[in-house]
Amino acid sequence: MFTVREIATALGAQAAGDLDLKITHASEPQDAGAEALAMAMSPQYGKALTQGNARAALVWEGADWQALGLDAAIFVVRPRLAMSGVTRMLDRGQRLAVGIHPSAVIDPSAEIGADVTIGPLCVVGPDAKIGAGSLIGAHCFIGADVTIGPEATLREMVSIGARVTIGARFRAQPGARIAADGFSYVTPETSGVENARKTLGDQGDTSAQSWVRIHSLGSVRIGDDVEIGANCTIDNGTIRDTVIGNGTKLDNQVHVGHNCSIGNDCLLCGQTGLSGSVDIGNNVVLGGQCGVADNLFIGDRVIAGGGTKILSNVPAGRVMMGYPAVKMDTHTEMYKAQRRLPRLMRDLDALKKAVFK
Amino acid sequence: MFTVREIATALGAQAAGDLDLKITHASEPQDAGAEALAMAMSPQYGKALTQGNARAALVWEGADWQALGLDAAIFVVRPRLAMSGVTRMLDRGQRLAVGIHPSAVIDPSAEIGADVTIGPLCVVGPDAKIGAGSLIGAHCFIGADVTIGPEATLREMVSIGARVTIGARFRAQPGARIAADGFSYVTPETSGVENARKTLGDQGDTSAQSWVRIHSLGSVRIGDDVEIGANCTIDNGTIRDTVIGNGTKLDNQVHVGHNCSIGNDCLLCGQTGLSGSVDIGNNVVLGGQCGVADNLFIGDRVIAGGGTKILSNVPAGRVMMGYPAVKMDTHTEMYKAQRRLPRLMRDLDALKKAVFK
Amino acid sequence: MFTVREIATALGAQAAGDLDLKITHASEPQDAGAEALAMAMSPQYGKALTQGNARAALVWEGADWQALGLDAAIFVVRPRLAMSGVTRMLDRGQRLAVGIHPSAVIDPSAEIGADVTIGPLCVVGPDAKIGAGSLIGAHCFIGADVTIGPEATLREMVSIGARVTIGARFRAQPGARIAADGFSYVTPETSGVENARKTLGDQGDTSAQSWVRIHSLGSVRIGDDVEIGANCTIDNGTIRDTVIGNGTKLDNQVHVGHNCSIGNDCLLCGQTGLSGSVDIGNNVVLGGQCGVADNLFIGDRVIAGGGTKILSNVPAGRVMMGYPAVKMDTHTEMYKAQRRLPRLMRDLDALKKAVFK
Repeated sequence: MFTVREIATALGAQAAGDLDLKITHASEPQDAGAEALAMAMSPQYGKALTQGNARAALVWEGADWQALGLDAAIFVVRPRLAMSGVTRMLDRGQRLAVGIHPSAVIDPSAEIGADVTIGPLCVVGPDAKIGAGSLIGAHCFIGADVTIGPEATLREMVSIGARVTIGARFRAQPGARIAADGFSYVTPETSGVENARKTLGDQGDTSAQSWVRIHSLGSVRIGDDVEIGANCTIDNGTIRDTVIGNGTKLDNQVHVGHNCSIGNDCLLCGQTGLSGSVDIGNNVVLGGQCGVADNLFIGDRVIAGGGTKILSNVPAGRVMMGYPAVKMDTHTEMYKAQRRLPRLMRDLDALKKAVFK
Repeated sequence: MFTVREIATALGAQAAGDLDLKITHASEPQDAGAEALAMAMSPQYGKALTQGNARAALVWEGADWQALGLDAAIFVVRPRLAMSGVTRMLDRGQRLAVGIHPSAVIDPSAEIGADVTIGPLCVVGPDAKIGAGSLIGAHCFIGADVTIGPEATLREMVSIGARVTIGARFRAQPGARIAADGFSYVTPETSGVENARKTLGDQGDTSAQSWVRIHSLGSVRIGDDVEIGANCTIDNGTIRDTVIGNGTKLDNQVHVGHNCSIGNDCLLCGQTGLSGSVDIGNNVVLGGQCGVADNLFIGDRVIAGGGTKILSNVPAGRVMMGYPAVKMDTHTEMYKAQRRLPRLMRDLDALKKAVFK
Repeated sequence: MFTVREIATALGAQAAGDLDLKITHASEPQDAGAEALAMAMSPQYGKALTQGNARAALVWEGADWQALGLDAAIFVVRPRLAMSGVTRMLDRGQRLAVGIHPSAVIDPSAEIGADVTIGPLCVVGPDAKIGAGSLIGAHCFIGADVTIGPEATLREMVSIGARVTIGARFRAQPGARIAADGFSYVTPETSGVENARKTLGDQGDTSAQSWVRIHSLGSVRIGDDVEIGANCTIDNGTIRDTVIGNGTKLDNQVHVGHNCSIGNDCLLCGQTGLSGSVDIGNNVVLGGQCGVADNLFIGDRVIAGGGTKILSNVPAGRVMMGYPAVKMDTHTEMYKAQRRLPRLMRDLDALKKAVFK
């Protein structure tokens, strides 16, 4: 429970009215009760505010809070940034019991930092290190020789394979899989796939062969302030480590192949997949369901719209779209032309009749 | 074990021959032994029936069952509907031992209904409620304050985060993740992504920034008769709950972002993904690997073919296809024109030569 | 630890220099220390070799190893094949403690072969059989009546549902889900989807209905030498089993629907999805994020590029690309024409003006 004053102070925001009002939770304006802080950060939510029973709200700059029936208001300039501060304060978490649950199976050689909570039925392997202040949810698996920095928050059923190193303030959502083996095979002789890639379509004269496995000797190295979404999969490198830089966030069901290197402060949205050995710069944003073919380079600050399939290198700063990916304005131009295609065909037929008849 | 009579009665179907014949399992016609009920619901399976040793079969209306060598036959009008009835009767389940396994870690404040089975090594959190007659598979995690209605069936390794509410007859396949935190971030100043979305391609003059997290205060609310596939991920809402309506079914690896609202009786096929704040009506069917961009509205009874990427609102009743999604007949027309493009180019060159030479 | 001689012998490769040199691990050339075997299998890595401190390396045929500063060298002809041999020898695995962990919950009727390791907190169901020499990681679930052949390697949190049969040398990565129930529903009356599929776009005059479930009575049958990636999902068949042939490998997050049959020695890359009842031949390679619509046939040796969505049968030997999939050379031709479309439109306008003015 916080007062309006405490929240305003935490946000560094102006506030007005009864600043001692108590807030227990946040609410959409129309659903808000007397102890809620209503989220009404643009004028379009004004009416919804009056439909609910909020006494306090986050409102837009210059809002006439008294006319909206409020007893207190906090004024915000950049709404989603304010949301960040408010939701951090009011997050009730998962109610994990503090301390190390007796059902957890922890190798005696593991080093558990101060004030670490480990949930029921976790497994912590030999020589694993878990940083101070970390919260490990139920059913997690921390493999041998793993190092996790301080203040990590793992939800339930996260698995982290042997020899992974992770920085500070790591977050992982349920079912995240760090350090699966890479998907890497070779045929004894040249395969049809190798030929088809070289010729762009011709398998050549190859015989059917079985696949021989290339094992993963590398692991995964993750920086500070990284978040990995639910049911993501991040593969080990073959010889070197797969790397994820500081501040990078992965949404649910993202796949990162072996040997990939992702820079700092990137966002990879839901169900995006990177093949092996992809090299991604800093501040890159890939929308949902993007794909990147293997061995490609993607420069700093590249943005790709949802569903973009990147099949060649992308220079820094580009905004991309489509399958295969092109610059977004090229995509828009191509798409408009495609929509006009049926009419164009009729025009062409008319022309042919006129010219060649 | 059932008699042919019992099965016919359950299906509300006509039957003929030795109705006391005992059936232990269903089988494809060519593999059927003496105690199998062969599935031969259209004339194309007639020959396969005579290759197997079935004595009883589900057959098409008007089939000459004696000529097919059967001792008993059940006549069906709508084959897949009959399959539903038969497979429900003959489902052997997972052979989970009845009752609460001693290795499960159950908080004393949890309320477990009558006749609930909880498999080995489950975790049930504080104040969780599990409805009567539910079956919870091995290694499941039921978080704090979760409410699950009666007669749920959870397979192994399902996880349900804090404060989720679920209606009656819920089904979840292995590894389903309910209530991961939403993927929601903001930069302190306007970001290149915000600019690129506004301008459709221009990042403008923004500097590199780190991402600040928006926590999820909402949870997930699920109606009656919902089924969630293996390794699906459903995120918590930010302020309100993410909602899934009655009778909606999600296939494997479907992703539902934060704040989404899905109506009743929808089907979302394998690997489909919804970004944040998508609003889907009733009786919507999205084929496999569909994607829906954030903040979109999809009306009742919309159908999208496999691989469709929906990037703008879709009115009720539409049938959609493509990336970006268009009406299916538009897609067909555009696609045909594309296939003719190379020829069209040659025609155009000939015309140019004729006209401008 | 191995000597250079032992590694060369295992690879069947020529070697030169101090063959008694001890190797503890593999390394990229620039990072290599004195006990590393540097991977420098083409001349482009020559410079990197001199930057590191490797004394021994895998090098290309004819490399002047002494000039590269090495004390020993192994000469390889097909680099990735050599990688396979080297990585297999130097794989340190997950350091799972040998034997059956006391926290595992194993049904007394299960048959565990000789020299089997079962990790902490595993569940093995009634009448399950685990072949000799298998390694079962932590938190795995082996369901009732499952049979796993000898020398399996399961990473953590793998789940295998009831009645699955698996051949020899099976590998499964973390979170792989074998034998979820199939996604199969029917409406009591004809549905809009059925109409839209028949008419390619017209739902007809159907009323909204709820979905009735078709249960899965079949299971999953997997051959020898199969590998299943992290967080894959493989569904049970409806009446018959879903089948995966010998030597087939699935990358992470691959989805295989009910009743599918996959042949021998196939590769399905990351996030690829097969709908129900897909029939795939031998030696098929599907790139990342491919999709295959239901009830299709894909012949032997078909190759599909990343992101290909296959919506109709594909004859043996074809190389495919695109959405919808076409032959790769057709795709290239169509794509080039698309890129020229905007110019083509301008040409056409000029022609129209010239001819019709």
